[in-house]
Amino acid sequence: MTQILISEVGPRDGLQSIRSILPLEAKCAWVAAEYAAGVREIEVGSFVPAKLLPQLADTGDVVRFARTLPGLTVAVLVPNLEGAQAAVEAGAHKITVPVSVSETHSLRNIRRTHEQIVAETHAIAELIASLPEDRRPSLEGGLSTAFGCTLEGAVPADRVVALAEQLMRAGCDEVGLADTTGYANPTQIKSLVRRIRGAVGEHALNGLHLHNTRGLGLANVLAGLDVGISTFDSSLGGLGGCPFAPGASGNIVTEDLVFMLEAMGLKTGIKLEGLFAAREVLRKALPATDELYGFTPLAGLPLGFRQ
Amino acid sequence: MTQILISEVGPRDGLQSIRSILPLEAKCAWVAAEYAAGVREIEVGSFVPAKLLPQLADTGDVVRFARTLPGLTVAVLVPNLEGAQAAVEAGAHKITVPVSVSETHSLRNIRRTHEQIVAETHAIAELIASLPEDRRPSLEGGLSTAFGCTLEGAVPADRVVALAEQLMRAGCDEVGLADTTGYANPTQIKSLVRRIRGAVGEHALNGLHLHNTRGLGLANVLAGLDVGISTFDSSLGGLGGCPFAPGASGNIVTEDLVFMLEAMGLKTGIKLEGLFAAREVLRKALPATDELYGFTPLAGLPLGFRQ
Repeated sequence: MTQILISEVGPRDGLQSIRSILPLEAKCAWVAAEYAAGVREIEVGSFVPAKLLPQLADTGDVVRFARTLPGLTVAVLVPNLEGAQAAVEAGAHKITVPVSVSETHSLRNIRRTHEQIVAETHAIAELIASLPEDRRPSLEGGLSTAFGCTLEGAVPADRVVALAEQLMRAGCDEVGLADTTGYANPTQIKSLVRRIRGAVGEHALNGLHLHNTRGLGLANVLAGLDVGISTFDSSLGGLGGCPFAPGASGNIVTEDLVFMLEAMGLKTGIKLEGLFAAREVLRKALPATDELYGFTPLAGLPLGFRQ
Repeated sequence: MTQILISEVGPRDGLQSIRSILPLEAKCAWVAAEYAAGVREIEVGSFVPAKLLPQLADTGDVVRFARTLPGLTVAVLVPNLEGAQAAVEAGAHKITVPVSVSETHSLRNIRRTHEQIVAETHAIAELIASLPEDRRPSLEGGLSTAFGCTLEGAVPADRVVALAEQLMRAGCDEVGLADTTGYANPTQIKSLVRRIRGAVGEHALNGLHLHNTRGLGLANVLAGLDVGISTFDSSLGGLGGCPFAPGASGNIVTEDLVFMLEAMGLKTGIKLEGLFAAREVLRKALPATDELYGFTPLAGLPLGFRQ
């Protein structure tokens, strides 16, 4: 039985995409409900200036709460050294630095060139290395727009490879590939995963962050599984996407993803009934105008389906 | 470049699932618009008593129109010998007899046991054999609920195999597998396709009819491609599903399916812009209460995407 890690990104990617600001208690209840369902990695927020993303201003508090849940990997996004310092202080287990392979998108998203962000990643790696060993978070370079960009169009695979290599040299433990714009197709997923692994090593690429913008999200997961990917980001109720890439919307839905993997006989450690309960926790916390997505919660589980 | 055949089933499966009755002209305009986009197989209707499905009462006329489009395979569904006679008279190129592997579903759907439907299929095959060679439609046994049933739950693969063998002995040219209830997962698709092909021969199973009830439709297509399936049913705007299987809804969406296949470098012969135009033809013909589905038409094609 192959074990697959689901990394829930809703509390970060979902909340940064909607206007509503959830109170800290609602965020903690959401994280706790997913933990109760069996989710063991959650990206709980982002350390960015509160004036840019007021929705995530209390990320430090969410990290501190999430750390009380035994066995949970508490992940956060940080755009720079200052954010990394805050993440370390709060006690995050995993730090992802988003790097858009499309430099146009990078400038628009975090106002940095590739050179600047690689240098910043190196500074973050040095900060981590300076910590006592038991306090060091893992460091991931998150290669966004890796499969194409709504501003630049096609993104050459060579550029993804080059940036992955630079990020590993800068001190990342691993890189991840993100289909920020929902441009990816299964053939491209397989070929790019193979190329990146060929360049940075089999164990330096484990995760895919996929969107369902054109309905191909789960087909792309299947392609990832075929080439050995074992970690998938997803969002409860499909909340979120990327607000800075016009036309791109919709993380893959955790409920549908877990249903597919479990139905295939893979192990996620997550109970679907628990996820449906977490979805209700989230729904009650959100204003009615914020829509939740996903097919399996509406259709229900197949008659006689057992996990 | 692998060629994939898309069999559009909206005019049959879609229209039988909604209350609205489209006028003949609207059906013909829809068929013509899909043909103009490059679609080369369309299931245009079903020969069933008009009192059961008044939406499809003019199927004969739709067949006669569709036959005027050069190179189009005009397919129809027929539940019995009487329907097959009407199909032959109208000049359909392909006849599918739906056979639900779940006998409970079969009784509810067409009020026939397996024994009765196999005997009926045999009679249809004899009718076809009695025709001059150039007027013989091809005959497919459509194995519905092959991946599970909302009334019976899991459907044993042995039963699907046995029924496929009976239908081929009864005189079918091929069988198809239908996930009527949206229960299928990619692992099951691969294993059932391999089993059925092992039993009835490589060339006697070419087509899958998949639903997106739990969001796995395109992932299941990908699994089908992996085991050599070359024909996929889908519905423009995802219209339809199976009205007799409670909780089951949603054919896979032609627009998203064609986008995925073309993006992967496979050839469907279908232009996406033409499909989007056909979608507008359909939308204008339907009352506003009948929703259309699909992600690609809303998101648009990726920047710089070329077919």
